[in-house]
Amino acid sequence: MKSDIDALMAKRNLDAIIIVADEIYNPPLDYMMNDGHITTGLMIKRHGAQPVLYVSSMETEEAARSGYEVRIYNDPGLIALVQEHKDISRGHAAWWGRILAACGLEGGRIGLYGAGDFSFILGRVALLKELCPQYEFVGETVLTGTLFDEAFATKGSDEIERLRSVAQRTDLVMQQTWDWLTSHHAEGGLLVGADGHTLTIGKVKRFVRKALLDVDLEDTAMIFAQGRDAGFPHSRGEDNDALKLGQAIVFDLFPRELGGGYFHDMTRTWSLGYATPEVQAAYDEVMTAFDIAIEMIKPGMPANQPQLAVLDYFESRGHQTLRTHPGTQQGYVHSLGHGIGLNIHEAPGMSHLSTATLAGGNAITVEPGLYYPEKGFGVRIEDSCIIESDGQVTPLTTFRKDLVVPIESR
Amino acid sequence: MKSDIDALMAKRNLDAIIIVADEIYNPPLDYMMNDGHITTGLMIKRHGAQPVLYVSSMETEEAARSGYEVRIYNDPGLIALVQEHKDISRGHAAWWGRILAACGLEGGRIGLYGAGDFSFILGRVALLKELCPQYEFVGETVLTGTLFDEAFATKGSDEIERLRSVAQRTDLVMQQTWDWLTSHHAEGGLLVGADGHTLTIGKVKRFVRKALLDVDLEDTAMIFAQGRDAGFPHSRGEDNDALKLGQAIVFDLFPRELGGGYFHDMTRTWSLGYATPEVQAAYDEVMTAFDIAIEMIKPGMPANQPQLAVLDYFESRGHQTLRTHPGTQQGYVHSLGHGIGLNIHEAPGMSHLSTATLAGGNAITVEPGLYYPEKGFGVRIEDSCIIESDGQVTPLTTFRKDLVVPIESR
Repeated sequence: MKSDIDALMAKRNLDAIIIVADEIYNPPLDYMMNDGHITTGLMIKRHGAQPVLYVSSMETEEAARSGYEVRIYNDPGLIALVQEHKDISRGHAAWWGRILAACGLEGGRIGLYGAGDFSFILGRVALLKELCPQYEFVGETVLTGTLFDEAFATKGSDEIERLRSVAQRTDLVMQQTWDWLTSHHAEGGLLVGADGHTLTIGKVKRFVRKALLDVDLEDTAMIFAQGRDAGFPHSRGEDNDALKLGQAIVFDLFPRELGGGYFHDMTRTWSLGYATPEVQAAYDEVMTAFDIAIEMIKPGMPANQPQLAVLDYFESRGHQTLRTHPGTQQGYVHSLGHGIGLNIHEAPGMSHLSTATLAGGNAITVEPGLYYPEKGFGVRIEDSCIIESDGQVTPLTTFRKDLVVPIESR
Repeated sequence: MKSDIDALMAKRNLDAIIIVADEIYNPPLDYMMNDGHITTGLMIKRHGAQPVLYVSSMETEEAARSGYEVRIYNDPGLIALVQEHKDISRGHAAWWGRILAACGLEGGRIGLYGAGDFSFILGRVALLKELCPQYEFVGETVLTGTLFDEAFATKGSDEIERLRSVAQRTDLVMQQTWDWLTSHHAEGGLLVGADGHTLTIGKVKRFVRKALLDVDLEDTAMIFAQGRDAGFPHSRGEDNDALKLGQAIVFDLFPRELGGGYFHDMTRTWSLGYATPEVQAAYDEVMTAFDIAIEMIKPGMPANQPQLAVLDYFESRGHQTLRTHPGTQQGYVHSLGHGIGLNIHEAPGMSHLSTATLAGGNAITVEPGLYYPEKGFGVRIEDSCIIESDGQVTPLTTFRKDLVVPIESR
């Protein structure tokens, strides 16, 4: 939680943190900025103190909405250092040193956070080491375990409210998509609209993207994959493919608040008109796995336990898994789920190798699936939910889980 | 250009480059992936050799569209190393060493590129240094001058075709927005639609976002800022504000290909119904500055020359500039422009401090502006264009530059 930041800094022995804005979606920055917004610049937070923002003179108004003190990054001091060093990068690195001193830090251990160009930050740190040796600039070596990963993992009530709102709006768009599909009819095994045109995956995606905008959400790369494509978990689907009856369609929708913010993540598997017995059987097993997981999840449990139970189940049904066959592309080929928030994937991880512990305030996905690309299908069912401190698991996603979408044939 | 990558590696004395995919928009990866797509994994390119991709077993199909060799990242070797090191991060770092060896690299200097979480990459490099000391992993210290910045700066004919297509579609959406605004009428100085409702900035932005989707573009945070807000170059505008007659509106539209790709960047300043003499005068000066810049731009010219000429002009008209008043928030408060491509801002930079040289194949913006927030207005005019090797400057943006949008009063 945001209120833990100082404790998380102390645990890492950090005198300050810098969040670098680099013109790209930046979850740690978004987390800390309240209602403010900047595209470049620095947020500097000393342990125990409020953050200070250094921003371009063009962005002072947007920065000030954060409620933090705002200072100008591109001030005459920067220009002088660029001229003194006869090099833009060295001038900027020296300027970071001046900024840290102006924040009352004469030296110390500084954690660097944010998102952007890897080559830039590695180069910047090399220059800082040379030009500002009184500071030690550090990253973190623990995968999905940085200071912000830890903070993100436990949601505050304001965050849960936003997650719930995104979930409700995503559910609404799912319902609108279902209704729109059922307003089509089938001709020769293909979906056809009132205008007589065959419905394609590209048209569905455009419908969904616009419906998301109507509720102030933005698509971040939905999956609407049919038949063999559905057999590859991250295959997005082919825009030009016509929608066919009796094919498994994996529809994985993970929009976020418009302009960046909290995500929702949900998946339904749909079969238009009817389902083949093979797909129905896989769907039934995935639903069983889903129920096994949901029923056992509780705070305090090792995060890999639900996945171990699902692996046991799928393996007992004769499917390959990532445990029995690492790297396999058929059977159950991914983790059970992941944390969700300002990142589509964040802590806690729910693979069988995860060392995390589930806790009250976690927002997680539960998404078992079965994949048989060579048999021409895949099935995945995914809800997001909140683990409550009292042990309850509250679903964020509430949309129905029907496999078959009724379609009238003409 | 893409064909320069090996030469750019040699210039930097790099034996190989790694592009790290980290679930975030990643221009170097996008540049190299052809029609393929991955969300996590590594692209490894030895000097003189084709890239090899290491991807999750879930993404092999999408990766294979690149035409490169695809190998599985999460294979049993990785699991064994995670178990051996009893730590996920150390296991992954050791696995990177194995992967490099499997690519025929026993040691050497490796450039790290891509985009993602800063703390992650700094921590990963620290572990690599410890676990794989036979390699030196490096970033670059030159701001806007990395290997990919250099490659991006000169567009190939396929890139120019894509930039042109994005430009045409953006122009179309500008025209649709203009037409839609003029379909409204004025009542009491506010814009009102046929439905009798007052038009707000939020409604305009929603209209524009949907129109962009209809031509397979996505908004990346357009500016539609009115009155005092227009006086701050990066103020996005207030969704709840009603559109008013006679106020300067800065409309900066910079969408990109849907799902990530090439950007277009253009700005118009509109005044609904009529313009005040003050805004008209600022507009006329901005157009003069625009023409001064466009007419002098040619390949081989220092990239700061057009900005110096525009600074001379604006200063002669009595405006403050970043040269006379670094950090000023009134007058001419930003650079003349920037390169555009897979990044909204890339090389060459066109500030008065830029040390770049303009070259044939550059795609750049030209965007002088004047800002007077305390007087309640700002004006900016921006086109993107291609600098041709033969010295021509070909506009990508062709939409008209009228200041006044005619509105019928009732």
